[in-house]
Amino acid sequence: MSQTDRFLRACRREPVDAVPIWLMRQAGRYMKEYRALREQYSILEIIKTPDLATQVTLQPLHHFRLDAAIIFADILPILEGMGLQLEYVKGDGPVIYNPLRTAADIEALKTPPAEEALPFTLEAIKQVKTALAGKTPLIGFSGAPFTLASYAIEGGSSKNYIMTKSLMYEQPKTWHLLMDKLAASVGHYLRAQAEAGADALQLFDSWIGALSPADYRAYILPHSRRAIEIAKSSRDIPLIHFGTGTAGMLALLKEAGGEVIGVDWRIDLGEASQQLGDDVAIQGNLDPVVLFAPAPEIKKQAARILDSVRGRAGHIFNLGHGILPQTPVEHVAALVDFVHEYSAQTG
Amino acid sequence: MSQTDRFLRACRREPVDAVPIWLMRQAGRYMKEYRALREQYSILEIIKTPDLATQVTLQPLHHFRLDAAIIFADILPILEGMGLQLEYVKGDGPVIYNPLRTAADIEALKTPPAEEALPFTLEAIKQVKTALAGKTPLIGFSGAPFTLASYAIEGGSSKNYIMTKSLMYEQPKTWHLLMDKLAASVGHYLRAQAEAGADALQLFDSWIGALSPADYRAYILPHSRRAIEIAKSSRDIPLIHFGTGTAGMLALLKEAGGEVIGVDWRIDLGEASQQLGDDVAIQGNLDPVVLFAPAPEIKKQAARILDSVRGRAGHIFNLGHGILPQTPVEHVAALVDFVHEYSAQTG
Repeated sequence: MSQTDRFLRACRREPVDAVPIWLMRQAGRYMKEYRALREQYSILEIIKTPDLATQVTLQPLHHFRLDAAIIFADILPILEGMGLQLEYVKGDGPVIYNPLRTAADIEALKTPPAEEALPFTLEAIKQVKTALAGKTPLIGFSGAPFTLASYAIEGGSSKNYIMTKSLMYEQPKTWHLLMDKLAASVGHYLRAQAEAGADALQLFDSWIGALSPADYRAYILPHSRRAIEIAKSSRDIPLIHFGTGTAGMLALLKEAGGEVIGVDWRIDLGEASQQLGDDVAIQGNLDPVVLFAPAPEIKKQAARILDSVRGRAGHIFNLGHGILPQTPVEHVAALVDFVHEYSAQTG
Repeated sequence: MSQTDRFLRACRREPVDAVPIWLMRQAGRYMKEYRALREQYSILEIIKTPDLATQVTLQPLHHFRLDAAIIFADILPILEGMGLQLEYVKGDGPVIYNPLRTAADIEALKTPPAEEALPFTLEAIKQVKTALAGKTPLIGFSGAPFTLASYAIEGGSSKNYIMTKSLMYEQPKTWHLLMDKLAASVGHYLRAQAEAGADALQLFDSWIGALSPADYRAYILPHSRRAIEIAKSSRDIPLIHFGTGTAGMLALLKEAGGEVIGVDWRIDLGEASQQLGDDVAIQGNLDPVVLFAPAPEIKKQAARILDSVRGRAGHIFNLGHGILPQTPVEHVAALVDFVHEYSAQTG
């Protein structure tokens, strides 16, 4: 019988019978059950209805032998509680109608308790935990202060982050006030998820790779560190610190905190592992587009990744970023099974 | 009197009186002379009219003490000669109306001589050389095979490069045929620019950071290397090999070729310099958005970059990617002067 705590053991760098795997955005548009539900409900409706969020969270576990579930939610609803008006516009992605443009906007931001601002996700965590009955660990998550700030300032996704970085450079005091508020909200939200029963947490600093390492250190690192400290101040469960485009700043992400560093495909995982050292676990790092390739190519690339860190204590297999909507479902199954079989054989 | 060959000396890792600086897209929309011309002419009209391309190439040299000019052109017109229909659509960027979707499309691609396909840029190089009268070196350039392939296949810019990578994984023979044709076209175009009088060349593999290092090695590197070999087969002038998001694959870019490796801001330049070793020059790497910051922040960041490779033989200061259209002109002047003054003092 396979280990049900393979994922948590790997987070703690303990021996495992096979390398654990889960996939960012494993519940999502590539699955027809999810698309069927989305014909009836908007993304925000699903997130805010614990029964629906629970149902979607469990969908991929019915099809794939995944080693962890991740609560179905999104990084942006936390901004609603702070006073921002959020909508997911079809084709355009998320839009914030009252983006932060002045110091007064930032001073006016609220930091309500997560229990008040995001009760639906905390309730969904409790429901999923009951449904999983200890058979699969559950990951809670939040966006990180920088990535959230970039949406809140730009009003949506961005190519060059001109307004975000301009605020950082031109009004450092206001910037740090914003990051203080975001770090508190993010930290408390993660802590509340841990208290609701999450077995691990992931901090998504998805767009942090837009910054130079020097700017990351000066303007971001202290705030990410504080968010992580708050997150772990009640139940000290493993935290995965993830970003994309971080090949030049992995040591800084580690310095900010987390038991596991999540790495994208833009660096060889063996090289990332060496840079990080062996006192932290590593998660990654298949290019999500490889899942569009024929099965032999998928297996070849997964084997290369597994081989590059073979023998390392603490590897969690994942994509380097979220699974893409058009991904063929049968390729996901092939990947999950291959990772287990190959790593169990090669040790 | 300052060295007029500072840039070329740095390319060859020879001692310089001050660190040379030029800026990617230094002729462009942030300058009012350029915007005025663009009210009368489209981008393609300017590129295809040597008098206009010459005029635009020289515009930034009238305002800033830049150490090199770069011919005003674009990476995509080379695709027109190969049989693709290109247009720059206002707000949407470049569009290719007949993107490559089948093996037959790729087999049908032509590889006409640069003298036939891009005579306007070769003529503009001759005119600019005459105008510069040896006082400032001139850089010629081309897109690299991968970056060109991504536009030709996706039909424009892309977020995830799903079609490009799918072709690579699913039809490797067809992929390599496409890359063969692109490497030949790019190589011969660069060689023709050298023959027309360019003093140095830059190969722009702008979107190469979308790939894993392993895929770069398997699917791209041999073709970039061949393009560079052809480029240098007539006049062996310095070649700058540039990409963004390359913090995890700098050694591979160097392996593909080039006397100078161009680096973006997502890695500390000192660390990039160590990874590359001292048998190659380095170019970079200020975040273009820093030019929106107040002058003291610009100078602080430029000083940090200069300090990080101080004493290294072969540093050319540049942004980590093209200058952005909204950049304040006076900040560009402040940066150029600061780089010269600071590096001349600190050696």
